[in-house]
Amino acid sequence: MRTLKLVVAYDGAGFDGWQRQPGRRTVQGVLEDLVSEVMSEAIRLTGAGRTDAGCHARGQVASFTTEARLPVGALPHVLNRRLPGDVRVRSAAEAPAGFDARRSARARRYAYRFLREDDVLLGRMAWHPRRPTDADALARATAPLVGTHDCATFHATGSGATGSVCRIHRASWRPWDGGVQLDIVADRFLYHMVRSIVGTALAVQDEGDPGRAMRERLSARDRGRAGPTAPAHGLCLEQVFYPAEDAS
Amino acid sequence: MRTLKLVVAYDGAGFDGWQRQPGRRTVQGVLEDLVSEVMSEAIRLTGAGRTDAGCHARGQVASFTTEARLPVGALPHVLNRRLPGDVRVRSAAEAPAGFDARRSARARRYAYRFLREDDVLLGRMAWHPRRPTDADALARATAPLVGTHDCATFHATGSGATGSVCRIHRASWRPWDGGVQLDIVADRFLYHMVRSIVGTALAVQDEGDPGRAMRERLSARDRGRAGPTAPAHGLCLEQVFYPAEDAS
Repeated sequence: MRTLKLVVAYDGAGFDGWQRQPGRRTVQGVLEDLVSEVMSEAIRLTGAGRTDAGCHARGQVASFTTEARLPVGALPHVLNRRLPGDVRVRSAAEAPAGFDARRSARARRYAYRFLREDDVLLGRMAWHPRRPTDADALARATAPLVGTHDCATFHATGSGATGSVCRIHRASWRPWDGGVQLDIVADRFLYHMVRSIVGTALAVQDEGDPGRAMRERLSARDRGRAGPTAPAHGLCLEQVFYPAEDAS
Repeated sequence: MRTLKLVVAYDGAGFDGWQRQPGRRTVQGVLEDLVSEVMSEAIRLTGAGRTDAGCHARGQVASFTTEARLPVGALPHVLNRRLPGDVRVRSAAEAPAGFDARRSARARRYAYRFLREDDVLLGRMAWHPRRPTDADALARATAPLVGTHDCATFHATGSGATGSVCRIHRASWRPWDGGVQLDIVADRFLYHMVRSIVGTALAVQDEGDPGRAMRERLSARDRGRAGPTAPAHGLCLEQVFYPAEDAS
């Protein structure tokens, strides 16, 4: 039995998210069906991040086990020839036995992109908020998030059985062609967490001390203190990090 | 009789270009039909650039004359509410009598975007060529284009009745998020000219002196000396320039 690891990119606009759901077009569903066909074996993919409907990915990672002997190097080409244009397998590699794209992941990096003005080309992958964004104030708002915190405020479904403590390694803003973007790295992300952080950063950016306002909302551990959840189409899962021995 | 000027953006992927053609979905066709309906009058749009099928625009300009008294400030909102998602009216303004988006234009700016690697999000608006691009060599290749030249080498249909002399004000490369892009400004552009220049720049980038190679091909005034025409989806009409009195 081999364990294989795929790095997957998709334009989320045409998908009801990553996770397989009956009667819906999801990335897991489209990929599993094709990989099963190519492998002549019913395979089950595990994705590193269960991205929401409309959310994009450039570096989603999916793992599966298989008995098939197909050379792993050929897999991206074989799959991409038959995948629809909005999903691409960027690479495929052998992984150590027991590798699990979700459980083995040590951190994930998401980007959330703002547009400074409406744009018919970039509007697919970035959000144009009605209120003007202030990059400096946004950076001050998100700086206090770095560290280990109970992030229940940003958890759409409240504290679950697994708790809501996350270790945020980075939360920084930088310019991109369309405006500014948040790069955020954490060991785990709760349901709607990035979109909730973005909405809250926007909500506090015009306060005198956006960092203090964010700290207060974070420490309240109260979903009611979060700003409105930002739309999914600005969000992209950029990269998943694994321990060196699983990096292949 | 009033003359109005619209600035229009579109994602060219779903259009058979700008120019109205029977039985085809074109930007001019979609816009003319809607403007005519809103104005309750058959209007005819003149576009500054007849963009090819698949080519995008952020700053196409279209003019028309009308008897209607609709306030021009309301026009973008009124049109955008009913336009499909892949075309947007960015602004509308009164123009001086006699203004013609095409004939009054003094210069146009196009961008041609390369991708450094395949990208499912940016691949709609940029081209990933098989051969790696060398930004320095590309810049050396296109530098000799600045000036007034007979551009017949880059004219897909050869020298027409109006000649093929163009004044190129700028041809420079800069990084963007996905790779590098050419910004090119000229008084006029011949049919397929930018895509032909891009293909020729790629063809000569690996020669010892790309600038000299480009000069030779340009001065040959021979379509056979152009490189393969680069695909339309990397091209975007970014801006059209008018004399100050028509700028509104």
